[in-house]
Formats: sequence, structure tokens, C-alpha cells
Amino acid sequence: MAPEAVRNKKVVLKHYVEAGRGPRESDVEVVATETVVLAIPNGSPPALLVKNLYLSCDPYMRSRMAKHDPPGFVPDFTPGSVITGFGVSRVVDSTHPDFMVGDLIWGITGWEEYSLIVSDLGSFFKIRYTDLPLSYYTGLLGMAGITAYAGFYQVAQPKKGERVFVSAALGAVGQLVGQFAKLMDCYVVGSAGSDEKVDLLKNKFGFDEAFNYKQETDLNTALKRCLPEGIDIYFENVGGPMLDAVLLNMRVHGRIAVCGMISQLNLEKPDPVHNLFCLIMNQVKMEGFAVSNFYHLYREFEDEVVQLIREGKITYVEDVAEGLENAPAALVGLFSGRNVGKQLVVVARE
Amino acid sequence: MAPEAVRNKKVVLKHYVEAGRGPRESDVEVVATETVVLAIPNGSPPALLVKNLYLSCDPYMRSRMAKHDPPGFVPDFTPGSVITGFGVSRVVDSTHPDFMVGDLIWGITGWEEYSLIVSDLGSFFKIRYTDLPLSYYTGLLGMAGITAYAGFYQVAQPKKGERVFVSAALGAVGQLVGQFAKLMDCYVVGSAGSDEKVDLLKNKFGFDEAFNYKQETDLNTALKRCLPEGIDIYFENVGGPMLDAVLLNMRVHGRIAVCGMISQLNLEKPDPVHNLFCLIMNQVKMEGFAVSNFYHLYREFEDEVVQLIREGKITYVEDVAEGLENAPAALVGLFSGRNVGKQLVVVARE
Repeated sequence: MAPEAVRNKKVVLKHYVEAGRGPRESDVEVVATETVVLAIPNGSPPALLVKNLYLSCDPYMRSRMAKHDPPGFVPDFTPGSVITGFGVSRVVDSTHPDFMVGDLIWGITGWEEYSLIVSDLGSFFKIRYTDLPLSYYTGLLGMAGITAYAGFYQVAQPKKGERVFVSAALGAVGQLVGQFAKLMDCYVVGSAGSDEKVDLLKNKFGFDEAFNYKQETDLNTALKRCLPEGIDIYFENVGGPMLDAVLLNMRVHGRIAVCGMISQLNLEKPDPVHNLFCLIMNQVKMEGFAVSNFYHLYREFEDEVVQLIREGKITYVEDVAEGLENAPAALVGLFSGRNVGKQLVVVARE
Repeated sequence: MAPEAVRNKKVVLKHYVEAGRGPRESDVEVVATETVVLAIPNGSPPALLVKNLYLSCDPYMRSRMAKHDPPGFVPDFTPGSVITGFGVSRVVDSTHPDFMVGDLIWGITGWEEYSLIVSDLGSFFKIRYTDLPLSYYTGLLGMAGITAYAGFYQVAQPKKGERVFVSAALGAVGQLVGQFAKLMDCYVVGSAGSDEKVDLLKNKFGFDEAFNYKQETDLNTALKRCLPEGIDIYFENVGGPMLDAVLLNMRVHGRIAVCGMISQLNLEKPDPVHNLFCLIMNQVKMEGFAVSNFYHLYREFEDEVVQLIREGKITYVEDVAEGLENAPAALVGLFSGRNVGKQLVVVARE
């Protein structure tokens, strides 16, 4: 019997997004042109053919929508081609010894219904806890989760009871960092961009304090109000003026884990930071990190967090867009903070 | 026989130096008012009376000449009182069990001929290698030396053959960092503020390359010319635009040891730094440090560096001002880079 041929809807980059503006829905396009045969072609190198179920919207994707010369940290998308990102998929065909038909996996796939994956198969992890919502593997149990875990425990090196500040605290990474910190009896403060988010941080996620940065006239004052004794650990997700204010409030031997700077991604010239002399005054360490250096911790992380989820000690909020048609709006919405919690796209619920 | 009474010339802060300008000679005053009796008064807590021989001029002293509210990292000087700093002294009288009359010591003393020291005696180290020039203990074998040693080996964690960039490279700290790096077979580049200094770096200190930052139209271009493969370690002494340019040139897993930011000390508003996103892109660690956390390494450092000096593997350039009368100019000159090498003041050669 010949393998089934199906239509394959996909999200394609129309053109590079220039510096100085946020991505717009019109920068990408949902197309449904070719049909694909649901089998790996003869003669292909070891490959996977997957059906994509859930896709993750992540801030770093802004960078891939621009042209970099020389090439940057992650490769740029190619205009006219499908965009790629982390997702959860079901293996439909496999010629790779590590994966079997029917396996559920997460890793870097295409923003399309079916993807033929011939390179970077090393990015995929088999999903072991299939009784949990599969969408968790786009965030809490996926890249964002291991990012929070590595950034907090490995980079920031927390001690019990320290004072922790998390920006973009309701984001996929931030919400988990805050909960890890609470589990270490830290005093935890988060910032977010709406009163609804602040309310969730305090009342659902157990943050000790939170503030809406859009409502503050002076971020330094807001930090001094919420953290009068200063900050031992800053988990940095936003950059710019927030970082500048945080620097003034770091305690001696404080640590700044630099995970992302979402406020800076769309700017032509990044915002100025003036207060770096505070690094010397208070002997502060500030460290950028990439989750790819910590994937060796993934299984340990997955086991720990699944256990915490089952015990009700970790909670999680997702913002779910239904269908590839809504994927462009979901992605673009990240940069205005329209999402509440982890933004993901459902391609298919199988 | 009654103890001798002598005149005691001293350098006094006249008034706080406001933000936004460099210190001027007229901000301090050399006075020779009271006489002092060369004996510790009866009833004093354990104390030292010392004759000061050599005084160290250090950039951090700019901060002490200003009023800080709340108080900062090191206490502010007091207008009308003698200024203090690192120096080499001979013990004239002692009621402290660790020090005997005749001992040569280095630590924080007054900018005056004789000082009665009743607090912070823990800052003093006995000088063990009295056959070397005593002035070395104001810099190479003193605070600047242990700063270079701790900042390079402990904070920057160098690996053999790495690419090292040092700013203010002919300063007391910079010249030693560069030589430590050469001893580890690193490729070492320095920046300085005159062609004479650049020449010394290349021809006396063995730097592989050096540039005069005042002659460069674009610091990023200068760094790319001297370090086309980028920077593994930046030893930061200057801050501001140099730091911003360095960030663009850091290699993956690079380290920035933040020792000082001399270019920023006189500014009312520090210069902006725009390129901190490079910390994420290249997973760079940037760490401020204070030498006071590394004094436990002092004896190990002293032994190692004395050995290197004796073997001719470490060289050193001092800029020597003769007499307390010339101390104000020597101190002020630091901030325009007038000094060539370690700036010190001779109070007495005994």
C-alpha cells in the first residue's frame, strides 16, 4: 500500500524583519501548498517524519526573523521557508535507530503539520511522561523549563532564604524560576506588564510581591519598595531600564543570571545601561547562559519537575492559540506581552 | 627620656569633590600644623605609631573624595582630616602584639609623615622581602599586585593560550595582569592613553599588541584589528565606551573581570553601555570583585611574584613623586593618565 499523501499547511517567513520594530503578522504567511507523502524518501540519511502537535512561541525567535551578518547565535530563518522552533511531535516514520514510529518527542521542528527532519536529530528528547498534558513539553517540561532550572540552580547558585527578583515573571521561564525560588524559601518578587499578571503571580504562583512595571514611574523606587534589603539574585529576562534599576539594588555577592532581554530584541540601538559600576561596588557576577549547555541535566530536571507537578508544588499557566492560522498572532503577541503565561500553538490534538 | 616631638606634615581634604569633574590639586591641601609625640599615648587601645615612607595613588580614592549617602563601598574621607590610602611604613612604636618597633609594613595609613593607627590594624601586612625596593609594596607587591593576581587567576580563570585584553594596561594592575597572561602563553593586547605607554607595553612588558585608545576613531575596529578572533578574557579597568566595544568582541564563554572603571569615576552620569545582549549571545560571565575578598592569598602571591621578579620574569614601571608637597598633583594626575606606570609618592627614604 502506498503511503498516504496529505496537504501540509505551514507558516513561512515572508521577508526578514528589519531592526527597530516588532514582528508583525504580515511578516509571516500561512500557506498550504504542496502535499507530502507520509514516509521518509528512499535514500534519505537517517531521518524522522513527524506529525506536529504543539508549537512553542519563544522570544529568541525574534532574532531568527532578522538577517545577521555574520551569522549569530542561532541561524536566521530563510524567507520563503517554513519557520522552525521547539515543538511536541508524534513520529510517523523513522529511519533513525533512536526513534520509533509512534514515539512522542520534543525538539526543534517546523511550524507546519508534518515535518521531515534530517538534521539536528540530537535536539529531540523522547517524552516519558505521556500522562501529563503533552503541551507541557513546549514549555514547563521543555526548553523553557530546563532554561529556568539551569539558570536558577546552576548559574544563579541560590542559597536558602535569599532575595530573588524575576522579570517577565509570568513568562514560561519566569513562572518556574519564581516557584523554584519559593521551594528554597527565598523571598521572591516578580515584575510583569499587567495587573492581571501581577495578581496571578501573587495569588496563584506564590510570589511574595509583584509589580506592574508599566504602572511604575521609577523602577528603582519600585524595587526598593518590594525589596528594601536589596536583591541577591536577579533572573534577567528583559534588559534595558529594568536591568539598570536592578543594578542599583544588588546586594554584595549578588548574581544576575542573564537569560534573555526581550525588551531589547526589537530595538535598532539597545537601551543604555548606566549602572555597571555597581558590579564592582557589590562584587556582583552577571552571567549570560545558553540552555544548550545544560541539556545533560534534562532527565534529572524532568524527573524532579514531574514529581513536583504530581505533588501539586508546581503550577503552570499556558496561553493556547488554536491552529496554525493563529500561530502568527501568537508569536507576534509575545513582544507586546499579550500572552498570559506560556504561549503555545496547537497544531493538532491528534 | 621624653619621646621626641616632631612636626607632622599631612595632606588634608579641603572639601568634597562634586560629581561631574575630576579632582583638582586645590581640593586637597598640604598642611604642617601640629607636632606629634613619637609614642603611643597611655591608655590607647592596641595601636601602631608609624613613620610613612611610600604612599600609593589609586583610582578608587576618587570615590572617597566624594560624599556618599548612604555610605558606599569604602568610607568617604572627611573634609579637614588627613586622607588615607595604602602605603609602606616603619613601625616607630607599637602596643599591638603582632607588630614590633622597626617592622616594615604595608596597609592603610595616612597621607602624612607619621600616623597613629588605632583601628583597622588587620589591613597591615609585614614586609618580608626587605631587600627588594620597598616602594614595590605600594603596588606590585601590595594592593595592586594582589588585585591583579586575584582578578586574573581567580576571577577570570585563564586557560593557557587564551586571548586576553587589558585596558589601562600600563597601570599598576594592568601591567601585572598582562605579564601574568604572557606567562600562561596567552595572546595579550593592552590599551593605554599615549604612544609612549603603547611602546612600553609592547617593548618592555612583552604585550603582543597594544593601542592608544585616544588615537582610535572606533574602539570596536581597534579591537577587531588587534584581536581578530575575539577576546576570551577582558580585564576591565576603564568602563564606558571601551567596555561597550569589548562586549561586541567577546568569544563564547568569555570572562570579564571587572576590576575598575576609571573613565567613569568623575562622571555625573556614567556613560551608557548598549551591548550587554552579547553576554547572552556568547554566554559571557562578567564579575566585579574586591581585592579585600582575596587577602588570604596574599602570602602565596607575594612568594610567587618575588620569585618571578628575582628570575627577571616580571618587570615593573613606577612613576615616583618626591615628597608630600607633590602628592596632590600625583593623585590628580591619575585621572588624566599623566602617570606612566604605578604612581606613588615618596614621603621619606628613611
